[in-house]
Amino acid sequence: MSVTAPLGFRAAGVAAGIKSGGARDLALIVNDGPSRAAAGVFTANRVKAAPVLWSAQVLSGGRVHAVVLNSGGANACTGPLGFQDTHATAEKVAEALDDSAGEIAVCSTGLIGERLPMDALLDGVDLALSQLARDGGLAAADAIRTTDTVSKISFRKGDGGYMVGGMAKGAGMLAPGLATMLCVITTDADLPAEALDAALRKATRATFDRLDTDGCMSTNDTVLLLASGASGVVPGLAEFEQVVHAVCADLARQLLLDAEGASKAIAIEVVGAASEDDAVTVGRAVSRSNLLKCAIHGEDANWGRVLSAVGTTDAVFEPDRLNVAINGIWICRGGAAGDDRSKVDLAPRDVTITIDLSAGPHSATIHTTDLTAEYVHENSAYSS
Amino acid sequence: MSVTAPLGFRAAGVAAGIKSGGARDLALIVNDGPSRAAAGVFTANRVKAAPVLWSAQVLSGGRVHAVVLNSGGANACTGPLGFQDTHATAEKVAEALDDSAGEIAVCSTGLIGERLPMDALLDGVDLALSQLARDGGLAAADAIRTTDTVSKISFRKGDGGYMVGGMAKGAGMLAPGLATMLCVITTDADLPAEALDAALRKATRATFDRLDTDGCMSTNDTVLLLASGASGVVPGLAEFEQVVHAVCADLARQLLLDAEGASKAIAIEVVGAASEDDAVTVGRAVSRSNLLKCAIHGEDANWGRVLSAVGTTDAVFEPDRLNVAINGIWICRGGAAGDDRSKVDLAPRDVTITIDLSAGPHSATIHTTDLTAEYVHENSAYSS
Repeated sequence: MSVTAPLGFRAAGVAAGIKSGGARDLALIVNDGPSRAAAGVFTANRVKAAPVLWSAQVLSGGRVHAVVLNSGGANACTGPLGFQDTHATAEKVAEALDDSAGEIAVCSTGLIGERLPMDALLDGVDLALSQLARDGGLAAADAIRTTDTVSKISFRKGDGGYMVGGMAKGAGMLAPGLATMLCVITTDADLPAEALDAALRKATRATFDRLDTDGCMSTNDTVLLLASGASGVVPGLAEFEQVVHAVCADLARQLLLDAEGASKAIAIEVVGAASEDDAVTVGRAVSRSNLLKCAIHGEDANWGRVLSAVGTTDAVFEPDRLNVAINGIWICRGGAAGDDRSKVDLAPRDVTITIDLSAGPHSATIHTTDLTAEYVHENSAYSS
Repeated sequence: MSVTAPLGFRAAGVAAGIKSGGARDLALIVNDGPSRAAAGVFTANRVKAAPVLWSAQVLSGGRVHAVVLNSGGANACTGPLGFQDTHATAEKVAEALDDSAGEIAVCSTGLIGERLPMDALLDGVDLALSQLARDGGLAAADAIRTTDTVSKISFRKGDGGYMVGGMAKGAGMLAPGLATMLCVITTDADLPAEALDAALRKATRATFDRLDTDGCMSTNDTVLLLASGASGVVPGLAEFEQVVHAVCADLARQLLLDAEGASKAIAIEVVGAASEDDAVTVGRAVSRSNLLKCAIHGEDANWGRVLSAVGTTDAVFEPDRLNVAINGIWICRGGAAGDDRSKVDLAPRDVTITIDLSAGPHSATIHTTDLTAEYVHENSAYSS
């Protein structure tokens, strides 16, 4: 179902020959309206890919008619000529839709620093235009994969019968602001751009932004939310935010489970924090400890590596009041050894590390993965 | 030669049975004077091991009579009882030297979160006391190794014939503030504690603090500088600083070359920065990119991963003015592809990544390593 679950959207995914090997590598999503309201959030990286610079400009107008996405090349660090390539891609779609390029968003993912093969890409746009269909969401989700082993799609129904659907890609370079990912979410609810923007920022802040598999922030992250209004339903904002959050959380979980080389899905749950920011800061520091990620990979309940990561932050805490549980066993109490670490069962794929800062009522959870030889292998051998 | 290269020092390294397997695990260094002036720098981690808390207190007095060091256990996150263990160790040495425990520094390294086997350790102190010798520096350097495959020692002669000697350990958890390391430097120069402190801070800031192999900061880092004054030479401070710097730089290089699982020694050389802080910030961000470290391991000149790491910082730069060279080949110019990346020879162990921010006259170099399956293996299998 993916991005075509809601009414008013057509999509396609085709093999344009951007990737070697003949896999799908170009996706197109068209919003047939009646509304074209849209919102977007983009990478916080200061080195932004050409399509990010372009699409941020498009989204500042609050309207998107279509999104064209390619895998096989990030079009990042490609200079003014790379930006012209993005512009030409948007113009190509706009011409076919008899519209202005100013409402065509562009997303790219793949290797940084190389120009895209524009002849192949523009021919691919023609092919995608010819294949646009109400059931094209799955093909579109497939076409944006890079090292993703599976397509990521999700949808939820909201009160009154409107739909929210989405697709995402991302397997490495998953760190906040956002993760390294492209994500398009669609809805047939009827809401103005400002409401979409508020819902999307709130949802991404608590989902994709709390995914940190390898601490590496991408140049290309883009999350778009497009509304067609085709259901005629005008949802309440709070309820709509919950549905968008659910779709984002579902896609974030799929990204985590497909992270490059990972064998564990680790939730770093920080409680007892003086503020939510403190909880996020501590969760992030722990999620970035290569030593801890190796220990979890080795199924070693090494809570000392948790404390040594907590100690690098400026969060409010006293070292002798820290408590740590791994999968429910409080192996560190008051900053020293607690229950017997041999009681911790680290065999399951899902691992929860709970850190109690004993400093307040706030909490947050950061999701990460273990560090494995497979991660090293994949990122040594694959130029991305 | 190590810490016994300068006059006025005796040392020993013995097997106390703290480590299983019978390897040396306890070192003792005694300053026979006539001076006992000393300085120390310690981990910036807020979770500090008991011996760090103890030794920082000792060093606040500016005098050290002896240092006792153990491997086989960090005595970190061990609560008040762990602190009592450190105190008892210092008392044991002080009693034998007919002195107060307030001039006995203690250092520990090994697994976090477990108490030390104090009976074995205190017997080991007796054994070490009986073996103290002018040529004991090598045995002492051997006794502080954990995953270090080799002992790290260094010495330099200063103007007028005084000596500076040193030993260090550290192979993982090498990140600034300081690296995960213990280091004792000795000199027979005659300088007051304030001068030693100034020289040591200046040297560590530009050496150990610029080593970042895995971004993980230890709970136990300690660097001590002890002066016996036995040569009678009173060096000029600037010249003394240079000699201390040379010993620290030599030891830092040895730590880098022995880093856990590393196959490459990578210098991240940041030039054209608006400030030295900016250069350090950028170098540090790049040195912590797991994706880049994997790429260098795979001998892939993936400059896009350099730029994506630079882009996460708040340093002064414009993305379209960034230049990057790997081993002298400028593969990124003006934020886009430059010379042919296939010209880069990444076969040698030493790799230099030069990043020109085009924003000013300042520079700094951070030293790191590649990320390898061996690192993952070592830190999955070894509880440290």
